Amino acid sequence: MPLTPDQRAEIEAARATAQPTLRAVSPGMEAHLYRAHEVLDHGFIRVIDYMGDDSAIVQAARVSYGAGTKHVQNDEGLIRYLMRHWHSTPFEMCEIKLHVKLPVFVARQWIRHRTANVNEYSARYSILDREFYIPAPDQLAAQSTVNNQGRGDLLSGPEAARVLETLKRDAAQCYDDYEAMLSQDGQQGLARELARMNLPMNIYTQWYWKVDLHNLFHFLRLRADHHAQYEIRVYAEAIAACTKDWVPAAYAAFEDYRMGGTTLSAKAMAVLKRRLAGEAVGQEDSGMSKGEWREFVEVWG
Amino acid sequence: MPLTPDQRAEIEAARATAQPTLRAVSPGMEAHLYRAHEVLDHGFIRVIDYMGDDSAIVQAARVSYGAGTKHVQNDEGLIRYLMRHWHSTPFEMCEIKLHVKLPVFVARQWIRHRTANVNEYSARYSILDREFYIPAPDQLAAQSTVNNQGRGDLLSGPEAARVLETLKRDAAQCYDDYEAMLSQDGQQGLARELARMNLPMNIYTQWYWKVDLHNLFHFLRLRADHHAQYEIRVYAEAIAACTKDWVPAAYAAFEDYRMGGTTLSAKAMAVLKRRLAGEAVGQEDSGMSKGEWREFVEVWG
Amino acid sequence: MPLTPDQRAEIEAARATAQPTLRAVSPGMEAHLYRAHEVLDHGFIRVIDYMGDDSAIVQAARVSYGAGTKHVQNDEGLIRYLMRHWHSTPFEMCEIKLHVKLPVFVARQWIRHRTANVNEYSARYSILDREFYIPAPDQLAAQSTVNNQGRGDLLSGPEAARVLETLKRDAAQCYDDYEAMLSQDGQQGLARELARMNLPMNIYTQWYWKVDLHNLFHFLRLRADHHAQYEIRVYAEAIAACTKDWVPAAYAAFEDYRMGGTTLSAKAMAVLKRRLAGEAVGQEDSGMSKGEWREFVEVWG
Amino acid sequence: MPLTPDQRAEIEAARATAQPTLRAVSPGMEAHLYRAHEVLDHGFIRVIDYMGDDSAIVQAARVSYGAGTKHVQNDEGLIRYLMRHWHSTPFEMCEIKLHVKLPVFVARQWIRHRTANVNEYSARYSILDREFYIPAPDQLAAQSTVNNQGRGDLLSGPEAARVLETLKRDAAQCYDDYEAMLSQDGQQGLARELARMNLPMNIYTQWYWKVDLHNLFHFLRLRADHHAQYEIRVYAEAIAACTKDWVPAAYAAFEDYRMGGTTLSAKAMAVLKRRLAGEAVGQEDSGMSKGEWREFVEVWG
Repeated sequence: MPLTPDQRAEIEAARATAQPTLRAVSPGMEAHLYRAHEVLDHGFIRVIDYMGDDSAIVQAARVSYGAGTKHVQNDEGLIRYLMRHWHSTPFEMCEIKLHVKLPVFVARQWIRHRTANVNEYSARYSILDREFYIPAPDQLAAQSTVNNQGRGDLLSGPEAARVLETLKRDAAQCYDDYEAMLSQDGQQGLARELARMNLPMNIYTQWYWKVDLHNLFHFLRLRADHHAQYEIRVYAEAIAACTKDWVPAAYAAFEDYRMGGTTLSAKAMAVLKRRLAGEAVGQEDSGMSKGEWREFVEVWG
Repeated sequence: MPLTPDQRAEIEAARATAQPTLRAVSPGMEAHLYRAHEVLDHGFIRVIDYMGDDSAIVQAARVSYGAGTKHVQNDEGLIRYLMRHWHSTPFEMCEIKLHVKLPVFVARQWIRHRTANVNEYSARYSILDREFYIPAPDQLAAQSTVNNQGRGDLLSGPEAARVLETLKRDAAQCYDDYEAMLSQDGQQGLARELARMNLPMNIYTQWYWKVDLHNLFHFLRLRADHHAQYEIRVYAEAIAACTKDWVPAAYAAFEDYRMGGTTLSAKAMAVLKRRLAGEAVGQEDSGMSKGEWREFVEVWG
Repeated sequence: MPLTPDQRAEIEAARATAQPTLRAVSPGMEAHLYRAHEVLDHGFIRVIDYMGDDSAIVQAARVSYGAGTKHVQNDEGLIRYLMRHWHSTPFEMCEIKLHVKLPVFVARQWIRHRTANVNEYSARYSILDREFYIPAPDQLAAQSTVNNQGRGDLLSGPEAARVLETLKRDAAQCYDDYEAMLSQDGQQGLARELARMNLPMNIYTQWYWKVDLHNLFHFLRLRADHHAQYEIRVYAEAIAACTKDWVPAAYAAFEDYRMGGTTLSAKAMAVLKRRLAGEAVGQEDSGMSKGEWREFVEVWG
Repeated sequence: MPLTPDQRAEIEAARATAQPTLRAVSPGMEAHLYRAHEVLDHGFIRVIDYMGDDSAIVQAARVSYGAGTKHVQNDEGLIRYLMRHWHSTPFEMCEIKLHVKLPVFVARQWIRHRTANVNEYSARYSILDREFYIPAPDQLAAQSTVNNQGRGDLLSGPEAARVLETLKRDAAQCYDDYEAMLSQDGQQGLARELARMNLPMNIYTQWYWKVDLHNLFHFLRLRADHHAQYEIRVYAEAIAACTKDWVPAAYAAFEDYRMGGTTLSAKAMAVLKRRLAGEAVGQEDSGMSKGEWREFVEVWG
């Protein structure tokens, strides 16, 4: 359970005090502000602030293209046009700030997206809480036999139980020892910047993460994808749900052109064109490697 | 005069419709929203949106440093501490979006600050207005004789008059020809993406510019500095005035530690320490070059 | 003619002095080093330095994926795999540094690619040369009637002649006046940082531009595309030719997956699947707007 | 001992095969190429590639400033001038690529420097080695009593022994369990992307890290500073030593203006000026807080 009663009270207090503003307001996003959306066993995402809405994207585009955009009948059509033609700068004019609580091994994957601002809880200054990610049984999967970085079948009963037991025991042991090394009770107490190294990577950390909408979409495309590791995907999905309420038109265009779309190589285009012309094409006369062909067939049959 | 009556009416309309929000609100910045601050002869800056305030900086810092920040008594003290120790990420948690109208040669200097989002009016799509920057007489300066990139004395009367006359005449001629080449009256009309090349660099363009507070401070330090070219400095000063109303505590720290402060090389520190110990030190025994020494003496006598 | 005999001699001298190095060497790129590839009427690109080659991409990928990459038989296959799955970081491990001479209006489009390092010739410090881009007759096109940002038919004889005459006359006039304002002969001489504003945007500037291979590919995809403005496209094509010799395997993958490939929206995928199943689908039952459908039909008939 | 005999042989092989190049060559850096500089108990840094040298900085600056740089007599003087006036782009024209082996908790601090390219070993694809950082006894320090993020005195004998024992035991236990969960011997074997979460943060990872010289200097200023945590500082120092051999003039300027220099706030400048004028100034009439004053006195007495 990620939130204490105190935290819930603090959120409710923050949500009780609306103030007038002249800025663009997204009603869908106001409903999310500060509220914690629970993710995994102890994590959450919370929208702390946002800048702009669908109309802010359109407004920025009209600055760029001046009279050139007048022929597009409506905002939604213009947003779709911008997304289709990879015009990234109008989407950069919206910004979101999130408070995220997440396991360290997820944070390490997340931080590879560099075009964002991050303020992470520092275990050099402060002591981390005793909270570890322990997978739910329906996520306890074996190594994939076909994919070097994927998961295969769920672990069967006794092995699953052993793994859960191991993860819990090691986390508890390491945290007990972390506390014991830090303790100043009858001893000097190890420096926090050193003691933290004893913590396993399923411990939870937290950060503020601020990103513009264009880079957020890039993050979501990679991390809400079904190839992404489950433990980061559930964060991406929770953020995607908020984004849909924040900028509904931009999100719909993103779903159509990015999440739901695909890319084709020159070779794949040639195969599709031959098939459309009635020709049967197999891997051996496609010009593709076996791996490429397997991925192509997954989509196109 | 940068704003038409229509534009003024549009701004007043936008300012008339406050909506409730749960986000952090900066009253000082609300007073600036959408209003045009006139700069140079036809330019302006307008705040279109902002995210965060002084308390948002503190809030982000407390996520990072946890209990470690509790000993700092108040927000202003913490902000000063963060600025003094070059903690940049809490300042990145605030964001500003501006609408700027500016001459192209200023835009070219401005864009060198890469960590920002920009949407510029496109002369490929649209036709630029007939508006050119013509310096006021008190800015019509000769090349500096000591500084390769600076200005020296003001031009004296007849030369000044000649320069103003030249700038106006060439701008008018080039714009007349721009229009004539674009015209589809009795001819095909040159493509806009080509015709624009005939325009001189004192023509005005406009853009939306979005930047976080940390990078804005970096911009202001370089561009509001008295070494900056006058024509960009006046933009920086107008933005600085808004920033002061937006995040007064952060701006005060910026003024003390960055704008009003200085850096010392190891050699300069050694000279000051010798002087504090009562020693007279000249350039020849300072270890500095003549150029360094001249700059040192400007500050320290 | 962009190069003087002195410059040619300087390049030959630089090319005469090979030194031993232990770094990765790309023989294809060594042949380009320092040589000017002429672009437009006075411009050029020159490769000044490079880091890495195809094998450096593979080497970086193998650090990431460890034993996981061993099953890929060869370097070319791994490079294709990385490109297909949007693994950008191994391509970021190569870097190129170019010297480019280009018209200002092209430079303004180019600089929108922010993830690069740029050192531009400063007209605040120095005086620009009298060199202007004047389009060749086969590039003197009318505004497109269907595309707000494109070119249509070539201008016919008399109009074309008028345009060329105008461009040359205005450039000459503005430059004459630039020189006259700068002159210190019998007058003080206007500051260079001011005088430059009188120059039209077809004047040539130059810069050093340094970028990693991933971001270079992104630049090439947008700027070597047939939708790009001709005047930047010829630069992109000249750089692409060097890149092909530098990292042949990566460039081949880029051509197949990016330049020669395409993206499909969810709606476009659905239409193709229906067509592959033998159904005839038109715009009205495609779910696409007229604009989207027109673009779809251009590719798929 | 970070390197196996095989690795040493591989490095010697790579160092045996010099090839001719026309690029700028830094003899000081060639001597470092591929060689591992050992850091901590199992870590290292190795220079894999570099671009440019001192003269490349000067060359880029002369493109920017044209004739404006001719008055500076020599390259070293120009480099000092550029560093003194915060001209960052010429330094961005040099690039370095490193192979680094480092504990995860150090990697997490390092990655906060976002303007760099990184390729990290992926524990999703591959299995990490059994190598953990265990501090040497002379680094086993207590929490500082005056600084929330610092170290105080060394731990005394029995406590130090307990800590070392704990760190080793927990690392061994967690790694044994990591292996046991991964094992496919008589069981399915947990997915690698899950098993890795059981590893403590003193385990070693490795990455390729590529950065330009300007951003490298920024990294070194923060991480080679005596306030930096020891475990990252030793990496920064090893890189600094290579950088000194790579670009000796730029490194000397960096040492004088950045590492060895200091910054003064407006208040600190005022105090120094009053002291230089013979006045005795204390905290209470300095305008500084107690914290600022303490830091000021540390430098200026």
